[in-house]
Amino acid sequence: MLNFSFVNPTQIHFGKDQIAHIAKAIPATAKVLVTYGGGSIKSNGVYDQVVAALKDHAWGEFSGIEPNPSYQTCMKAVELIKQEGYDFILAVGGGSVIDGSKFIAAAAKFAGEPWDILAKGAQVSAALPLGVVLTLPATGSESNSFSVVSNLDTHDKLPFASPLVQPLFAVLDPTVMESLPTRQLTNGVVDAFVHVMEQYLTYPVQGKVQDRFAEGLLQTLIEEGPKLFADDVSYETRANVMWAATMALNGLIGAGVPQDWSTHMLGHEITALYGLDHAQTLAVVLPRMMAAQREAKREKLLQYAQRVLGLDVSNEDVAIEQAIAETESFFHRVQMKTRFADYGVGAEAVEKITAQLERHGMTALGEHQAVTLDVSKAVLSASL
Amino acid sequence: MLNFSFVNPTQIHFGKDQIAHIAKAIPATAKVLVTYGGGSIKSNGVYDQVVAALKDHAWGEFSGIEPNPSYQTCMKAVELIKQEGYDFILAVGGGSVIDGSKFIAAAAKFAGEPWDILAKGAQVSAALPLGVVLTLPATGSESNSFSVVSNLDTHDKLPFASPLVQPLFAVLDPTVMESLPTRQLTNGVVDAFVHVMEQYLTYPVQGKVQDRFAEGLLQTLIEEGPKLFADDVSYETRANVMWAATMALNGLIGAGVPQDWSTHMLGHEITALYGLDHAQTLAVVLPRMMAAQREAKREKLLQYAQRVLGLDVSNEDVAIEQAIAETESFFHRVQMKTRFADYGVGAEAVEKITAQLERHGMTALGEHQAVTLDVSKAVLSASL
Repeated sequence: MLNFSFVNPTQIHFGKDQIAHIAKAIPATAKVLVTYGGGSIKSNGVYDQVVAALKDHAWGEFSGIEPNPSYQTCMKAVELIKQEGYDFILAVGGGSVIDGSKFIAAAAKFAGEPWDILAKGAQVSAALPLGVVLTLPATGSESNSFSVVSNLDTHDKLPFASPLVQPLFAVLDPTVMESLPTRQLTNGVVDAFVHVMEQYLTYPVQGKVQDRFAEGLLQTLIEEGPKLFADDVSYETRANVMWAATMALNGLIGAGVPQDWSTHMLGHEITALYGLDHAQTLAVVLPRMMAAQREAKREKLLQYAQRVLGLDVSNEDVAIEQAIAETESFFHRVQMKTRFADYGVGAEAVEKITAQLERHGMTALGEHQAVTLDVSKAVLSASL
Repeated sequence: MLNFSFVNPTQIHFGKDQIAHIAKAIPATAKVLVTYGGGSIKSNGVYDQVVAALKDHAWGEFSGIEPNPSYQTCMKAVELIKQEGYDFILAVGGGSVIDGSKFIAAAAKFAGEPWDILAKGAQVSAALPLGVVLTLPATGSESNSFSVVSNLDTHDKLPFASPLVQPLFAVLDPTVMESLPTRQLTNGVVDAFVHVMEQYLTYPVQGKVQDRFAEGLLQTLIEEGPKLFADDVSYETRANVMWAATMALNGLIGAGVPQDWSTHMLGHEITALYGLDHAQTLAVVLPRMMAAQREAKREKLLQYAQRVLGLDVSNEDVAIEQAIAETESFFHRVQMKTRFADYGVGAEAVEKITAQLERHGMTALGEHQAVTLDVSKAVLSASL
């Protein structure tokens, strides 16, 4: 096991009718900016619950944070905050709204050009306090310190992290998933699944607790994820997917073990260039990344095959091929397509994506820094 | 899954050479009282590492916090704190030192008779900040808000809990386990194991993440625990046991699922009356409590048998008997005795312990409040 430091200070309120908790969780004197996306929270009742909970608070709102939240949109919120003196952000939405709100929280307190937080890794030394009402289980952003923001002008999609933007609290009410469209459910399950894989499918360091926790999350997503697309979905299925997605990227399963993240790095470039949803890119890349790294990841691939998928591993090479095929098949079972061609992206993309990776210094990715530009190119080519 | 609120704000520093972290984790201006037990930290090098790390802090020490920390000893520390103006406690030890230090932290700020915190559930409204250097993985006290303290005069062993006494940080260095005597290692493994069982072996609520995390901890303890008693113990074994013990009682696996704790309630009375180590009492009670509750716990007993122990469950009753027998056998494999007779406690204990349970209002224990005094009496009788 590797040395690690770990803490997760986000207060989780999980379950039915938990949105009312925000009334007490936000200081009574705060002037709250409620941030959200395209307005689905108005049709599914979440907006009304938030308004009811904030009846004794001073608050305003900022809508229009888009999927793959843009620097340009976020900066409009920053301007509003400065004009109106908001001092608390309540993000109501999925990963994009939360990621955008994290950047807004940091940018509102940043002296200088906030783009530097993303482009130059400029230090975040202050941020507005942030709370979350989660409407889409997927990214884990509701209880971590990470954010990814895109620049529409430059086609850059870049991450930053700071403990100052970690949400103080997150309300997770599985019933909000009832009105989610299939595409968002699909994205959520795949995103959460790949988050676990990035922290699990590396090389063994005898982190038995971390491995078993990761395996438990993968099994839960494999069992419960496809049930989200049935006609009759239970509260329990939604609750299990929601909690698994949060646990998938709250720092716990990655503490003390190597991490990969090469699939995510390729995926970010694909989204920035071709506009695929984040999870769509992951489903395109991951099976080919697993195949390309099958020797480096051999032991963990076999462990995954055996413990998560229940495969017979007596013939190791066959088991690994089966594990990769079953992973892609799982993506199909949650309605996810797994080839560039499914999204109308052609062979010319390979060079363009590779050039972006090079421009962003992504020339040695993965837990062994073994995913060179050549490997990335081969993975992308195999994913057409 | 049940509704829940969960947060764990303790900053964990895990691994070799992490004790130095305390220098930054404690405010530079703090006047630190280092609390510890019988002095084993002086022979195993931990004391010297703490002293080195505190070289720029003002600090003093209080030693002699005993196993099953007593109210009487703790109050001596409270007096010292008031005399000398200490404003930060650094607990260096195992669960007893940490539990005692939590009570000291609360009692030092308590207006009134601090025993009321334990005896009357008096509200803790302030406490000194507390940090921990863990020397014995077992209780999970290093990252939770619980404490159990005994009154030597009245033979009461009583718990309290407050978020104000949850440690701000905990240093977990597995190498400190190298010098631990067998008895303490035994106690630690059994204590952690039973903590998981109290939160897992109840009735199913479709908490798939919680169940799989619990099962992962049980498997880790079953695999790694016995290795602690070999001639040559690896760092990885110690690290896995240490991390499993912390995760066993930091609130995570119990969030959103029913909990039992009947074995613990009986165990506390046994320790208070007969002085058995806490974990010894758990190992005596648990197998018989499992048997007594076999119908109420049927589904989870079968899940435990199948998933944790890998038993064939086609004959359910046989599988349940085997699961109970294997649990007791696991305790034996970590050098733990499991009968009252092993500790010289005779049949007269049954009535005495039951009377104490009655006196403390423990008349309907467990997840179904089905462990009445009659059930407790039967469990105790069967454990002779």
